[in-house]
Amino acid sequence: MDNNIITPIKFNNGIITILDQTKLPNEIVYVDLVTVEDVYDSIKELKIRGAPAIGIAGAYGLFVVSRNSKALTVKELLNELKIKGDYLISSRPTAVNLEWAIKRIVHKLNINIFSTTNEVLEFVSSEAQLIQKEDEQTCYKIGEFGSKLLENVKNVLTHCNAGSIATAKYGTALSPIYYLNDRGKNIHVYADETRPLLQGARLTAWELMKAGIEVTLITDSMAGFVMAKKNIGAVIVGADRITANGDVANKIGTYSVAILAKEHKIPFYVAAPLSTFDVSIDSGDDIPIEERAKEEVTFIGGRQYAPDDVDVYNPAFDVTPNEYITAIITEKGIITPSYRANIKKHFE
Amino acid sequence: MDNNIITPIKFNNGIITILDQTKLPNEIVYVDLVTVEDVYDSIKELKIRGAPAIGIAGAYGLFVVSRNSKALTVKELLNELKIKGDYLISSRPTAVNLEWAIKRIVHKLNINIFSTTNEVLEFVSSEAQLIQKEDEQTCYKIGEFGSKLLENVKNVLTHCNAGSIATAKYGTALSPIYYLNDRGKNIHVYADETRPLLQGARLTAWELMKAGIEVTLITDSMAGFVMAKKNIGAVIVGADRITANGDVANKIGTYSVAILAKEHKIPFYVAAPLSTFDVSIDSGDDIPIEERAKEEVTFIGGRQYAPDDVDVYNPAFDVTPNEYITAIITEKGIITPSYRANIKKHFE
Repeated sequence: MDNNIITPIKFNNGIITILDQTKLPNEIVYVDLVTVEDVYDSIKELKIRGAPAIGIAGAYGLFVVSRNSKALTVKELLNELKIKGDYLISSRPTAVNLEWAIKRIVHKLNINIFSTTNEVLEFVSSEAQLIQKEDEQTCYKIGEFGSKLLENVKNVLTHCNAGSIATAKYGTALSPIYYLNDRGKNIHVYADETRPLLQGARLTAWELMKAGIEVTLITDSMAGFVMAKKNIGAVIVGADRITANGDVANKIGTYSVAILAKEHKIPFYVAAPLSTFDVSIDSGDDIPIEERAKEEVTFIGGRQYAPDDVDVYNPAFDVTPNEYITAIITEKGIITPSYRANIKKHFE
Repeated sequence: MDNNIITPIKFNNGIITILDQTKLPNEIVYVDLVTVEDVYDSIKELKIRGAPAIGIAGAYGLFVVSRNSKALTVKELLNELKIKGDYLISSRPTAVNLEWAIKRIVHKLNINIFSTTNEVLEFVSSEAQLIQKEDEQTCYKIGEFGSKLLENVKNVLTHCNAGSIATAKYGTALSPIYYLNDRGKNIHVYADETRPLLQGARLTAWELMKAGIEVTLITDSMAGFVMAKKNIGAVIVGADRITANGDVANKIGTYSVAILAKEHKIPFYVAAPLSTFDVSIDSGDDIPIEERAKEEVTFIGGRQYAPDDVDVYNPAFDVTPNEYITAIITEKGIITPSYRANIKKHFE
């Protein structure tokens, strides 16, 4: 069953292949990334998305640079990798994992000694694969820990896509579902479509169906009624950022879902790797809210659905205060309240 | 200012003109209804929508039948009106007001005595105009009573379209906003776009802008965050049906909004005419939930956004239990808890 879990990036015999997520679910298109521009464009155009997956793509971007390089010396190649690395980072400047992955490789290149450009190529290749492998393991561990919370649960509700195709494999919020499915326990997933960009409809529903997991698509407005009527045993979502006190920034709509879960006495779980925590930020109040283009709301698929000149509020994410969160699942275990103390302990 | 409030149906010199709501907000198209088939189609194709507005259109449909009739005797004409009335009802069999309006006129025709077909025509004309006028007055009174609840409110959130274009004029949920705006008090409205059919984006935002009322469009998923951040003083929605205990069936998503309002300690108001109450039904548990086509969720504007064969749950409305409702506003006054007793009193 594990084989049916979609991986968004493949590396075989030096060829990088990605799933073009902009074409989902109507077309399943895999694209080879041959040049550094291919990698840049695929990130910029959201063919590859999800913080961990973007980081992995960036790392493979450096491999592509190494392989295509005409540099004659190690020094020349390292210099080129630095420059092209910055170029890759600029494809999505706010993607923390992208910068992290590229800087990690560039840093390691600087502190190692290489005799030939081919040694550099080999090193970058193995480092990129390592980043991918580590993320897969991280997600797997999240699945393993998270599965313990879902043992008696039949139906789960999720928001947006924190799934396999946002990571190396397994995802974060969806990883426990995959983990349990692989062990013969079928959980039915209710997927919020997640306006404005419809990641739930386009991505979550698709990847779960591909893996043979039962999924029911709903509009975001139905979440409350589904909780009242459909025996939802848990809500599980991913996170963009988690602050020192356990507040969670995630896709807009997460906060509403958390309140609805509380009202229905349904546990609300956040699944995220340790890299999502930013303990330098005290609480969610200190996170600036990014507002995106109004056209994301007024247009769908190139067609206009609201009046010209209408005022729109379009925050990209919201902040769910820690009081609504039953537990946070990481690759290291499960964090429960009180969060400030327990997050600190978790990182020790 | 009142003049800028959109009326969806106009009757001037025997000509019935409707606003084609399927073309909003991109095109503002008014259509004359000349034949009974025009009326039937305009209801069936949702050019005219909203329970009260459909009832009014049906009544004018009988006027069209009378005017176009080739009947030579009163008896012949009354018979034709009965048959064509049933035909009009079949355009939207679940629209309670449509059946109510047509049966009201047919019943009055049966208990009155007419000498000529022209007398019948005059009678139907004045009855249809009366139904329209009564609805306008009902909505106006809802606005007047509702305005008292919004006196200290700066920002209101609403769901779907319970506005002027769903009624003769003024609407239900939006009527207090219009009432206050007409008296120089400007309330800012946050309008949920209301998936799947986007009535908030297409209709509510449009009619409020036309009337010069400040409106901000949001996706349904943003309602919770907007309540937390935007100083929302009240939520106000319409209703499809209200049961004897004060449970409210309304557009899917209303229940979620009611819970979010409760969590933010924001009053949650329902505005509806007395005709919306069905006290023969004890509680919301007894209301069957109509499920609509999955394509409403998976397709937007003819384009597919979810996988083929995905399972979809698409309830047309949900039930908000009375405990979430701060007050119900009717043309007769304001009903507060406990609802079972006070609704009974309200109808005495």
